[in-house]
Amino acid sequence: MPIKDGWFTEAEVMWPGQAMSLKVEEVLYEGRSDFQDVLVFRSATYGTVLVLDGVIQVTERDEHAYQEMITHIPMHCHADPQNVLIVGGGDGGVLREVCRHPGVQKITMCEIDPLVCDVAKQYLSASTAVAFNDPRVTLVHADAAEYVAKDDQRALYDVVIVDSSDPVGPAESLFTETFYKALRVAMRPGAIMCNQGECMWLHLDLIREVLKHCHSVFPSVDYAFTTIPTYPSGQIGFLMCSTSPGQVLRQPVRTPDPAVSASLKYYSPAVHAAAFVLPVFAETAVATVRRPQVPSLCSSVAPPLLSRRNVGVLALGAAIGASVAAVLLRR
Amino acid sequence: MPIKDGWFTEAEVMWPGQAMSLKVEEVLYEGRSDFQDVLVFRSATYGTVLVLDGVIQVTERDEHAYQEMITHIPMHCHADPQNVLIVGGGDGGVLREVCRHPGVQKITMCEIDPLVCDVAKQYLSASTAVAFNDPRVTLVHADAAEYVAKDDQRALYDVVIVDSSDPVGPAESLFTETFYKALRVAMRPGAIMCNQGECMWLHLDLIREVLKHCHSVFPSVDYAFTTIPTYPSGQIGFLMCSTSPGQVLRQPVRTPDPAVSASLKYYSPAVHAAAFVLPVFAETAVATVRRPQVPSLCSSVAPPLLSRRNVGVLALGAAIGASVAAVLLRR
Repeated sequence: MPIKDGWFTEAEVMWPGQAMSLKVEEVLYEGRSDFQDVLVFRSATYGTVLVLDGVIQVTERDEHAYQEMITHIPMHCHADPQNVLIVGGGDGGVLREVCRHPGVQKITMCEIDPLVCDVAKQYLSASTAVAFNDPRVTLVHADAAEYVAKDDQRALYDVVIVDSSDPVGPAESLFTETFYKALRVAMRPGAIMCNQGECMWLHLDLIREVLKHCHSVFPSVDYAFTTIPTYPSGQIGFLMCSTSPGQVLRQPVRTPDPAVSASLKYYSPAVHAAAFVLPVFAETAVATVRRPQVPSLCSSVAPPLLSRRNVGVLALGAAIGASVAAVLLRR
Repeated sequence: MPIKDGWFTEAEVMWPGQAMSLKVEEVLYEGRSDFQDVLVFRSATYGTVLVLDGVIQVTERDEHAYQEMITHIPMHCHADPQNVLIVGGGDGGVLREVCRHPGVQKITMCEIDPLVCDVAKQYLSASTAVAFNDPRVTLVHADAAEYVAKDDQRALYDVVIVDSSDPVGPAESLFTETFYKALRVAMRPGAIMCNQGECMWLHLDLIREVLKHCHSVFPSVDYAFTTIPTYPSGQIGFLMCSTSPGQVLRQPVRTPDPAVSASLKYYSPAVHAAAFVLPVFAETAVATVRRPQVPSLCSSVAPPLLSRRNVGVLALGAAIGASVAAVLLRR
């Protein structure tokens, strides 16, 4: 295990030449499941930390930045999400956020590795693993790519959240076109899918490739990101897809429910929209594999009443009014 | 020097319990000036790296995320910046970005430490240190807090960019109310100031305190951020101030010049506006020490032509048109 001199250092398979380290107070669990190495430690300044195959998945200090964004962006893109599928997410954080939505009636969570859930229930019971007992939840331990391809999974879900680890190891099948095709079949018309989408600073080529897979399966595709200190390079992206053509995903269609809103530390409707505004280097790469091709605009003040557009509308109104008046008065 | 087993690890004075490491190919320079330790190394995957007092200042791979945002946000908040002051910025990166603006006529750079400029000219001559010979530049090696307080500095500058290191060590005086008061005197009416503003994930209390200093000196104050993998927690903020009351800083007043635009890897007008949209936890902290109190809105599509507001404007136009027609036709 990569703990040395009291510090955990993240393995750098997918991010060579750089490493993030956290100071360890106490190792709480070390083991291996059928799928991966599992490590839990109490850090000096980031609370309890869950590590899978040497890669940080959750720290209690910053997990909300990821859990809220991967959950509430797709949930607020749907007018009335009732049936939700979570793929992966064994730590329970996405489940916690989905359960905040009172309109949700049924949640299926398909996590391949039961050990991750067990370890989370034991060591993250005060942070991420708080909603496993919600009566709306069905927990399934299966390979999601096989699970969603079953006949009884057709046209079920309003929102699908794929909270996977990186595409090396058990999550590899979750970044393929085959998986996206199966997912689409499992989704209702107008349903939204959000998949962990790697980091634009590290894996822009991979992001483009996976977006192309999405693009060939879903009629609407976009890309957003969140900042999170303990993920490589301090941020992670989201692949956003919809089964509806022309759907704009970068704007919520609902404002958060007051109870949801009160619980949020990261997500807001403004943050939702800003998350799709990419730096030029990433925007250039993503622009060609995104649809619809909507421009990014951000404003912080109400548009002026007498904008060029409004003057035009006013003039149009004046012309209509004058014409109607002219017709009526000439009678 | 903190290089061990071929890896440089960033000292964690201001961010206890976490550390960023970069793999070292070759140490290019190691020395000490009157002010600080200076280290330059060629990294395995981030190009040449400049380190001051153990803290990463520049890596060639991601420096544009910082240099572009700290420069082009304030530069595009001013309609016609002609006279620019750079405080710090010895690596030359901010200078490079300011020099891209053809309207700028005079640039004063006040960097306390000549060694940083010398080392940058020698080792970063292909990246940040490319504009020291621009004829518009005057390089001054002085304490900026003393320099801007001089009588001949009154009402000179349109834009001031404070590209300092952290407020421990030589840059400590650059985060005080005294310094901001002196800066304000050196700024023209309508001038903009942008100061490196630490990281919201690490130093929210410090940010609030320094924003209060700004708030007591400048009539308009706001806070933005950029993502940058090699700064602690993967991002850094900017304190934005204006000598004009009620000035909205979160929108550019100009679009980038075509030549500037072609050179940009990070900044765009949409990125400018999105940089001010903060996660809820930071928004809550900053909201009370910001003015004017403008809401954050982001939209990615043009507002619908027949919004409630436009219907009102159309009706108003119709009424005006009808009235005018009625008067004219009754004559």
